Amino acid sequence: MLDFNYMVSTKILFGKNTVERLGDELRRQGNRVLFVYGQGSIRKTGLFDRVANIFTQNSVIYHELPGVQPNPRISHVRRGITLCKEHDIDSIVAVGGGSVIDCAKTIAAGFYHEGDPWELFQVGDSAIRKALPIGTILTIAGTGSEMNGNAVISNEDTEEKRAIHHDVLRPRFSILDPTYTFTVPKHQTAAGIVDMYSHVLEQYFSPTTDAYVQNRLAESLLHTCIYYGPKVLVEPTNYEARAQLMWTSSLALNGLLGYGRITDWATHGMEHALSAMYDITHGVGLAILTPFWMDYALSKETLDKFVEYASRVWRVNGNDDFVVAKKGIKKNSGVFYESWNAKNLTRRWSKRRKAC
Amino acid sequence: MLDFNYMVSTKILFGKNTVERLGDELRRQGNRVLFVYGQGSIRKTGLFDRVANIFTQNSVIYHELPGVQPNPRISHVRRGITLCKEHDIDSIVAVGGGSVIDCAKTIAAGFYHEGDPWELFQVGDSAIRKALPIGTILTIAGTGSEMNGNAVISNEDTEEKRAIHHDVLRPRFSILDPTYTFTVPKHQTAAGIVDMYSHVLEQYFSPTTDAYVQNRLAESLLHTCIYYGPKVLVEPTNYEARAQLMWTSSLALNGLLGYGRITDWATHGMEHALSAMYDITHGVGLAILTPFWMDYALSKETLDKFVEYASRVWRVNGNDDFVVAKKGIKKNSGVFYESWNAKNLTRRWSKRRKAC
Repeated sequence: MLDFNYMVSTKILFGKNTVERLGDELRRQGNRVLFVYGQGSIRKTGLFDRVANIFTQNSVIYHELPGVQPNPRISHVRRGITLCKEHDIDSIVAVGGGSVIDCAKTIAAGFYHEGDPWELFQVGDSAIRKALPIGTILTIAGTGSEMNGNAVISNEDTEEKRAIHHDVLRPRFSILDPTYTFTVPKHQTAAGIVDMYSHVLEQYFSPTTDAYVQNRLAESLLHTCIYYGPKVLVEPTNYEARAQLMWTSSLALNGLLGYGRITDWATHGMEHALSAMYDITHGVGLAILTPFWMDYALSKETLDKFVEYASRVWRVNGNDDFVVAKKGIKKNSGVFYESWNAKNLTRRWSKRRKAC
Repeated sequence: MLDFNYMVSTKILFGKNTVERLGDELRRQGNRVLFVYGQGSIRKTGLFDRVANIFTQNSVIYHELPGVQPNPRISHVRRGITLCKEHDIDSIVAVGGGSVIDCAKTIAAGFYHEGDPWELFQVGDSAIRKALPIGTILTIAGTGSEMNGNAVISNEDTEEKRAIHHDVLRPRFSILDPTYTFTVPKHQTAAGIVDMYSHVLEQYFSPTTDAYVQNRLAESLLHTCIYYGPKVLVEPTNYEARAQLMWTSSLALNGLLGYGRITDWATHGMEHALSAMYDITHGVGLAILTPFWMDYALSKETLDKFVEYASRVWRVNGNDDFVVAKKGIKKNSGVFYESWNAKNLTRRWSKRRKAC
């Protein structure tokens, strides 16, 4: 185990109707709020009205930044920072998925940065010192942004997609109500599961061999994806399946698996380039790339790790380690291929479920 | 999954020589320190001098409260509170195992309580509102007290042992250097492993059936105990084994496994009564009681859970569920019996290791 620091400071309010506690949390955080959200699905589901009512009941003054797109743009971040400065904002509430939360985080850090916010991505994490406090209400599971200090932003002018990481970007609180994810379409749900699954893989496929407990914890989360993936695709309003996947997405990237070892992130690096160019859904990009990365990465040096993955996650056994490793990759690829191709999603995931 | 709040705010500084960062942490926490420790083993290992030097180098004024015993007494807590008041203490540093940390936590809360500190254990957690900030340096793995808000204290006058729980009791930081546990005797090491293993069981044997990810995470920690238990008993200075067990003990009781479901704690409840009367080591008491609790608790209603435990943790298979469940209990009992009886420790744990 390598040396590490660990502090996961985000308060999670998990469960049905936990949004009712938004008012209490804002009393600790600030009452001049930038309300950041996406393309309007929260208006259709009624969540917008509920949040706006809570703001009003708690005498919170809020200004809206709607329209955050998937692969959120630095231009949108700039608009948010301008709004914060104009209206003397002291707190941000992000309602949506990873894109909305990442946009909010970058506004929060950019507010205190003297130059253009894209400089944060060019200079790197050392340029970040302070950020406005953020609270989130999650509406799609996958990125894990609700419980970590990461943000990924695209620059439409330079066709780049880059990430920043800092503890001051961790949300102070995140409201995780699985019922908000009931309406996420099947294709987006599958992309979210691929994303959380990939976060685990990026930390699992590590050259640090001494990481026993981290590896077993990682396999727990992978099995949860494989077990509940098919269930949620057939029954989108199955509370338990949505809840298990929502919590798994937070645990997959809050630091639990990564500390104490070197992590990989090669596939995420490639996917960022891919979606900067083609603007595809992040989870779909990962589903396309991961099997190829696995085929490429399998070698004499990495064989033990791929056998560990195949045997422990997919329950593949056999005498020839290379055959075992390749079977594991094949099982993984089948699920991922169907996830981005959106065909036979349910059948394919379900076939794999018996491994758990 | 039941609704839950989750916030694990303790900063962990994990690894070799992380004590060097004590000065930085104290600058955030306070510089008039109560230095709480146990029966003097830290003087023999040199840790006392190292900590005292760091205090001096950082202009920290400190007062000592030595002599905290296993099953720490409320009388010792009273002495600590008096010292804090006399010397205008603003921060506590606890160096030791769970007993020392629990004593420090109770002093921290008792400092702000107007009456006698035992009242906190009589009135319950609602009596706690505020506590002095605490930092810990851990020297034995097992209780998990370094990363949670629990404290267990014995009252020698009434022969009671009771617990309090509050978020304000969570240490602000904990320094986890596995090398400090190299000198822990075999018997104490085994008792610590039983303690962390038992913490997992108390949360795993839950009537909440919808807890898939929590159950898989729990099994990860149990396997880590079974895998590294025999190793560390043979090789007490094996860094990786000590590190894995140290981190597992923190994860076993920091909230990761318990949130979102009902937890049990029957065995801990009985053990507290046992060691209040007979002053035995907590882990030894748990090793004695757990197998009997399992035999008692196995019934038609709990059968599925015991089969899950036997098959997933101990890899027992078979057609008759009761036979499978009993075999799992037997394997568990064997390890636990030898742990409290201190005989053939290594052989017995090692035989079980192949399950991981």
